[in-house]
Amino acid sequence: MVDTASRSTPKTSGKRPATVPPKPARDEVAAPIPAPRADAQPASPRIDVELLGRQLLGTWADIRVAARERAAKPDLQRIEGQPMAEHRERVLGQLKTLVEQGAVHKAFPKELGGEEDHGGNIAAFEELVLADPSLQIKSGVQWGLFGAAVLHLGTEYHHRTFLPDIMSLKVPGAFAMTETGHGSDVAAIGTTATYDEAKQQFVIDTPFRGAWKDYLGNAALHGTAAVVFAQLITKGVNHGVHAFYVPLRNAKGGFLKGIGGEDDGLKGGLNGIDNGRLHFTNVRVPRENLLNRYGSVAEDGTYSSPIASPGRRFFTMLGTLVQGRVSLDGAATSAAAMALTIAITYGNQRRQFNAASDTDEEVLLDYQRHQRRLLPKLATTYAQVFAHDEFLVKFDAVFSGKADTDDDRQDLETIAAALKPLSTWHALETLQEAREACGGAGFLAENRIVGLRQDLDVYVTFEGDNNVLLQLVAKRLLTDFSRQFANADAGAMARYVVSQTAERAYHGTGLRRLAQTIADFGSTRRAVAELRDEETQRELLTDRVEAMIAEIAGRLRDARKLPKADAAAAFNRNQNELIEAARAHAELLQWEAFTRGLAHTTDPGTKQVLTWVRDLFGLGLIEKHLAWYLIHGRLSPQRAQAVTAYIDRLIERLRPHAQDLVDAFGYRPEHLRAQIASGAEQERQDEARAYYAARRAAGTLPVPEKASR
Amino acid sequence: MVDTASRSTPKTSGKRPATVPPKPARDEVAAPIPAPRADAQPASPRIDVELLGRQLLGTWADIRVAARERAAKPDLQRIEGQPMAEHRERVLGQLKTLVEQGAVHKAFPKELGGEEDHGGNIAAFEELVLADPSLQIKSGVQWGLFGAAVLHLGTEYHHRTFLPDIMSLKVPGAFAMTETGHGSDVAAIGTTATYDEAKQQFVIDTPFRGAWKDYLGNAALHGTAAVVFAQLITKGVNHGVHAFYVPLRNAKGGFLKGIGGEDDGLKGGLNGIDNGRLHFTNVRVPRENLLNRYGSVAEDGTYSSPIASPGRRFFTMLGTLVQGRVSLDGAATSAAAMALTIAITYGNQRRQFNAASDTDEEVLLDYQRHQRRLLPKLATTYAQVFAHDEFLVKFDAVFSGKADTDDDRQDLETIAAALKPLSTWHALETLQEAREACGGAGFLAENRIVGLRQDLDVYVTFEGDNNVLLQLVAKRLLTDFSRQFANADAGAMARYVVSQTAERAYHGTGLRRLAQTIADFGSTRRAVAELRDEETQRELLTDRVEAMIAEIAGRLRDARKLPKADAAAAFNRNQNELIEAARAHAELLQWEAFTRGLAHTTDPGTKQVLTWVRDLFGLGLIEKHLAWYLIHGRLSPQRAQAVTAYIDRLIERLRPHAQDLVDAFGYRPEHLRAQIASGAEQERQDEARAYYAARRAAGTLPVPEKASR
Repeated sequence: MVDTASRSTPKTSGKRPATVPPKPARDEVAAPIPAPRADAQPASPRIDVELLGRQLLGTWADIRVAARERAAKPDLQRIEGQPMAEHRERVLGQLKTLVEQGAVHKAFPKELGGEEDHGGNIAAFEELVLADPSLQIKSGVQWGLFGAAVLHLGTEYHHRTFLPDIMSLKVPGAFAMTETGHGSDVAAIGTTATYDEAKQQFVIDTPFRGAWKDYLGNAALHGTAAVVFAQLITKGVNHGVHAFYVPLRNAKGGFLKGIGGEDDGLKGGLNGIDNGRLHFTNVRVPRENLLNRYGSVAEDGTYSSPIASPGRRFFTMLGTLVQGRVSLDGAATSAAAMALTIAITYGNQRRQFNAASDTDEEVLLDYQRHQRRLLPKLATTYAQVFAHDEFLVKFDAVFSGKADTDDDRQDLETIAAALKPLSTWHALETLQEAREACGGAGFLAENRIVGLRQDLDVYVTFEGDNNVLLQLVAKRLLTDFSRQFANADAGAMARYVVSQTAERAYHGTGLRRLAQTIADFGSTRRAVAELRDEETQRELLTDRVEAMIAEIAGRLRDARKLPKADAAAAFNRNQNELIEAARAHAELLQWEAFTRGLAHTTDPGTKQVLTWVRDLFGLGLIEKHLAWYLIHGRLSPQRAQAVTAYIDRLIERLRPHAQDLVDAFGYRPEHLRAQIASGAEQERQDEARAYYAARRAAGTLPVPEKASR
Repeated sequence: MVDTASRSTPKTSGKRPATVPPKPARDEVAAPIPAPRADAQPASPRIDVELLGRQLLGTWADIRVAARERAAKPDLQRIEGQPMAEHRERVLGQLKTLVEQGAVHKAFPKELGGEEDHGGNIAAFEELVLADPSLQIKSGVQWGLFGAAVLHLGTEYHHRTFLPDIMSLKVPGAFAMTETGHGSDVAAIGTTATYDEAKQQFVIDTPFRGAWKDYLGNAALHGTAAVVFAQLITKGVNHGVHAFYVPLRNAKGGFLKGIGGEDDGLKGGLNGIDNGRLHFTNVRVPRENLLNRYGSVAEDGTYSSPIASPGRRFFTMLGTLVQGRVSLDGAATSAAAMALTIAITYGNQRRQFNAASDTDEEVLLDYQRHQRRLLPKLATTYAQVFAHDEFLVKFDAVFSGKADTDDDRQDLETIAAALKPLSTWHALETLQEAREACGGAGFLAENRIVGLRQDLDVYVTFEGDNNVLLQLVAKRLLTDFSRQFANADAGAMARYVVSQTAERAYHGTGLRRLAQTIADFGSTRRAVAELRDEETQRELLTDRVEAMIAEIAGRLRDARKLPKADAAAAFNRNQNELIEAARAHAELLQWEAFTRGLAHTTDPGTKQVLTWVRDLFGLGLIEKHLAWYLIHGRLSPQRAQAVTAYIDRLIERLRPHAQDLVDAFGYRPEHLRAQIASGAEQERQDEARAYYAARRAAGTLPVPEKASR
């Protein structure tokens, strides 16, 4: 941490952009501007690191701080290289520690000792990733999935009967939804729960190998019960997927009659969790074990539900389990932030090659390529931090009942399906780039990055495969789009089509582009001024989402009338673009959240630097999709070049602030636990430089052969 | 394998492209073309899988086949999840097995029992990755680095004295080049070897912590000797980095006097190798232990070398060790091919969601997104296979002396620096995409992908950090570029600048683009016809490399005259683009090799499909860099859209051939060792479908609630 008092020097931020010469156009020789030096102090403006750190902690700052204190203790931390069996037992023990510390009951009912604090619960839970992702996920299985299913899908009887032992970990449990044959398509699982009127029991059965429950945490070893998802069948009718509370093992750990299973064995990561498979052969549970908030079966086998539509009922049930996606978005963002803290700290100390001087080697982060590899990822991580806090506020509003309409729930699910894919993929990309940026050192377990990457890997496919989630978002966007015309007569639709065509003619055949080219010609400066304008960025990002969706909707508008197979084929031919449109939407959500967050930043220096970070994020998105903007006539070639030129300039400006920007994440050495980010590299560099300097001064350094001739 | 006899049906390949309607332009509704069905036979044309497989095996096909036989045996294979200590001992034992099998001496001199077969040696060595990447790399350390250094940097005395025990593994050894403080910049290592005339010994010394040797295979446990790279100092002059043969440990495994070290401990992968650190405190070795092919010290301390320039000498010495990069390119390509074989086989069997039918779920690979994720990576892998074989032929020509001029060696090094980064990054991306495409199953160690990815991770930064290697390529391209003008008068340079400016005006301000737009308008068909033309692809790819280099050279042409620091800053401001230019060059090399390989494909059906694969690779590169082509006026927006449309079409055409294309890699179940690619998934799917079909036929399937009303 840098002394914040020293940061109260007069800010020149308002003027600075004007005094930095614009990146020369490509037909001029680059002016030889010396690269920023690592040992230089951050240039004005300056970040108030402590204040910014507080802002990044977000709405549940105090809870996060307390959770980070817990994560800083070795007893909750991962031991790198621990064998799987020991790691699993260790994490089980850590769950007990969490219970003792009263750290995991925030979301449960007050009458059972909880706090009914849904947002705070997730905030605390996410921070466990700092200690060990296996601990985060195994806690999530126990209280966020198994317990939450009883809480949200069960009723008062289930809460009273099952929750206390779940909360206390007396009953570790599995969340038995996924099957070997069905993951993303939960509605099609094969397990059946057939009601037997005579005995008033449900008969849980696994009809074939593909219907084995699979990949379930707590299933291989520790789970003594499970919430099992199965097709509820009564009176010959299949009422769709419902959840049942099913005891699994006896006190000695043996499977109960009719139940069997397998260990999933070693995984790519998260080996502190005992994932496994389960199968059921006519296993009987009492009628009352149906978690019946959204569907009940009377003694005589009559089915009833507060939600008439089976489809809506299914999605409502699944919707109550959205918190997994919320917490993965937060934990993935934390992992990216940790990776960048490690790599940027190391990159600020480690030196290699001496292009600019005969004696001093360059600090890695002074290389443009190194900056290009890490700083845009830092900008994205910042965007995610802001987006995640808004997401969590929304989640809290829905689950606390403050804002819990159908629309609120649907919005929450769409946000979850949009943000979780981007942040989990970003975590993997960032961990990998950080690993590579640290070279061989990054590959050592002692520097933490590889272990985190191994654990986070599965975040991109569990709690909803990322591609499937983005497709959900796209379908929602298509629905919203078509709703604009739902009540309109054919004329309105026709008018829309005409306006689209006109727009295409305007954007698509070069007229607007040509005008832009003429206006821009010779003035990179003017192009840059416009690009750094918030509204320009917003318009470009928004426009892309809308245009992509409108285009696809146009292509699909007659598909509804086709036979099912042909309609599916038409949809399939647009699937890749649909998913890209959903990604564009999610990127826009992140950009908007960042921009709103920026509005709450009060310190002028911090605000200036953060604006550059936001611009780097926004323009980075536009650069990534530059071809689209060019093809669709939204940017002239001249202006498109200015995007990259301005990104180069932003990166140069941000480079001196890189350390402050990662320091503001607030991770301490006990959280990072990376040798190379401990200051050891700075010591090594200082020692080496002192060695050569002393010999140079004493004249005892051997003369290079070349100079000796 | 499919019966190749049945493939002699009349080929319609020549006509097919014309009869498939072009992808409709974006303002038309997509015609409802049913997606290809997984159970359909590959459409005409057909691939002759066996013939193609033979072609993919390349120049050393028989050696590869024999090496794959070895790799198919369990005793050489990795045991997933084996603890590090046991894994290390197992791999050491496997090295002994390889010696017993006579599998690793191909490159050594005939008089010592070798075969002097450099290309065949690498081909065999690469295939070890199928058994265990740790085995590949530990073998590489012993015979490809430690042994090869003695072979290529030593002279007859060293060969006679040291090679037999290295070849027999009596002396396992480390290749002690990298230091904690210097990896990519080998010239700046800190270890010194100071000649003591009185005792006729070299004194090896580690002056500070940053100069500890680090990340060395065989250093933590097994190495009893090392080739140590150090600054050779004699008579007060530093003659630069040279290699010394240094004994490390006594018979009991203890360090010799003055030597110490540390275990690097657990790594992100390759844990069958005992990487570690070494340091030397005034360790004395006889004068003869200098590996003196490129530099000798006489008894009186006089230094001499056949290469006068210290810089050229250094690069010549390092150049002899290029084989590491060659073999990583091959092994990385094999890993990508394995990953795709697993994911595509699984994607052809696994079903999820039933959009197109009321009963049958879709095979994953029938989803457009799934195809988009895997098939372009398959095309790149094919390009790499062809490029790697040419690379290996070049390597063999240089090391066998068949074509061993200075230019040949420089070309070989540039090719190595270009191809190794692309293929090792591609391996990681492909392994990750394959892992995600297999969902949760992909995360299980039993399905192999995660373990391979963990092991291959470090390939992108060892034997030359990928970014540093690409920068080397870029510098070579810049040098070649400026050489065009080296002997020209100022007038030639001036003319060049004028022609560049004229070209920019033509390409850059929309004139050519506008003309293209007018020509293309309404004719996606014409645009596609041109894009699939080989020469068009070649021109687009070549043009980009040349234009990027010319542009950067133009910006840097006055930098030479600047003071060192300013010149370095100017270079640094172009570093990112330089590296991108090098990547473009490497992509072009791959595309050209693929195209040459295609010319040798004789079977018409195979040739047709392979042409589509090559087109997918080439157009995929153009799509990736579409913004550049648009900005620089090489493609009109209309034509740019046709690139994506044609890629969509190519992918649709290739989809039925996907299985054949991965089968042609020729991996057997013993090589893949992935449960999900074993046919188990097909059995599960068949069982589940039979279950439902039987109940549907018998009328005993419970009625869905919706239908029951």
